[in-house]
Amino acid sequence: MPEYAEPVARLIEELQKLPGIGARSAQRLAFFIMRTSSADANKLASAIKEVKEKIRFCDLCFNITDKAICSICASEKRDHHVICVVEEPKDVLAIERTSGFSGLYHVLQGAISPLDGIGPEKLRIRELLDRIRSGGVTEVIVATNPTIEGETTAMYLSKLLHPLEVKVTRLASGLPVGSDLDYADEITLSRAFEGRREI
Amino acid sequence: MPEYAEPVARLIEELQKLPGIGARSAQRLAFFIMRTSSADANKLASAIKEVKEKIRFCDLCFNITDKAICSICASEKRDHHVICVVEEPKDVLAIERTSGFSGLYHVLQGAISPLDGIGPEKLRIRELLDRIRSGGVTEVIVATNPTIEGETTAMYLSKLLHPLEVKVTRLASGLPVGSDLDYADEITLSRAFEGRREI
Repeated sequence: MPEYAEPVARLIEELQKLPGIGARSAQRLAFFIMRTSSADANKLASAIKEVKEKIRFCDLCFNITDKAICSICASEKRDHHVICVVEEPKDVLAIERTSGFSGLYHVLQGAISPLDGIGPEKLRIRELLDRIRSGGVTEVIVATNPTIEGETTAMYLSKLLHPLEVKVTRLASGLPVGSDLDYADEITLSRAFEGRREI
Repeated sequence: MPEYAEPVARLIEELQKLPGIGARSAQRLAFFIMRTSSADANKLASAIKEVKEKIRFCDLCFNITDKAICSICASEKRDHHVICVVEEPKDVLAIERTSGFSGLYHVLQGAISPLDGIGPEKLRIRELLDRIRSGGVTEVIVATNPTIEGETTAMYLSKLLHPLEVKVTRLASGLPVGSDLDYADEITLSRAFEGRREI
């Protein structure tokens, strides 16, 4: 049975290890890389190596950083009594863009998802509990995504955090600003009703 | 506006250059790479570099190879009078697996697709004409995909090849073996009628 030359087969195999990249996508990417200029291919290879060399996770919050403690955790201007729990580093960026939160973060590095084989033990939950147990934290804002996985994770966390005498809150679910009530799905709409506030 | 650290931003930017990888996928892949072991990340980076160092395109048929002339073009066991024209190296592999074709190949490295900005000048069509003009070829089998792009390319090629006094054929379209007539789309079914043979 004819197969690809060894270097091609190896590249396809490595690409297939990436999330969401199946056999066909890996093949397509490999052919693209073979056709692209050596300069561009080397830039990609170097970017991969560089990110592993220079980027690490903050020892406290597990956000991505180039130092042992990230600039947010190290900042004295931030409110160290409040921890906002998110799934991914990109969520930290999204919240920072609002400039509306001045506390610290805790990046779980995922959400509970039994179908994908991600149980609580694969997330940075133990480290979150350690941070809270070491004292000083008054509120934990659970800002996992409003998806099944994110909600499951939020429920799981709230059970664990309850005995620790810390206020546990969840971001409000409801209609996105600028959206049309007509287009909202039923769950979002019922959440908007549940969370209604006096004006 | 908070942004990712430089190495992260660079990796996301490089990943976005890959086909079918948008901003969100690139971000997801970058985070995966950051979380994976250094050994795995380096294996991917090395595989990319290695494929560019060792793999090239055959000077004659433009299939991927590690030599100037690929093993198929160099083989004396193959029929050098027949050239099968395909879009991609993976098509060569697919045909070789059937063990039913003993001629040579010509890999166009794509198909005409105006929407993607791929005109005939971006394909290896000039090189195909040169091969045929240099003599000895009696039949050209156009085995581009039975898609709009593949059919367009086949039509274009047949017009160019017509004056060269070479037999030009196209792979049969019809019902796939093992399929159900009921499930065939209309175009496939009409092709199957057009191509019907006496039994």
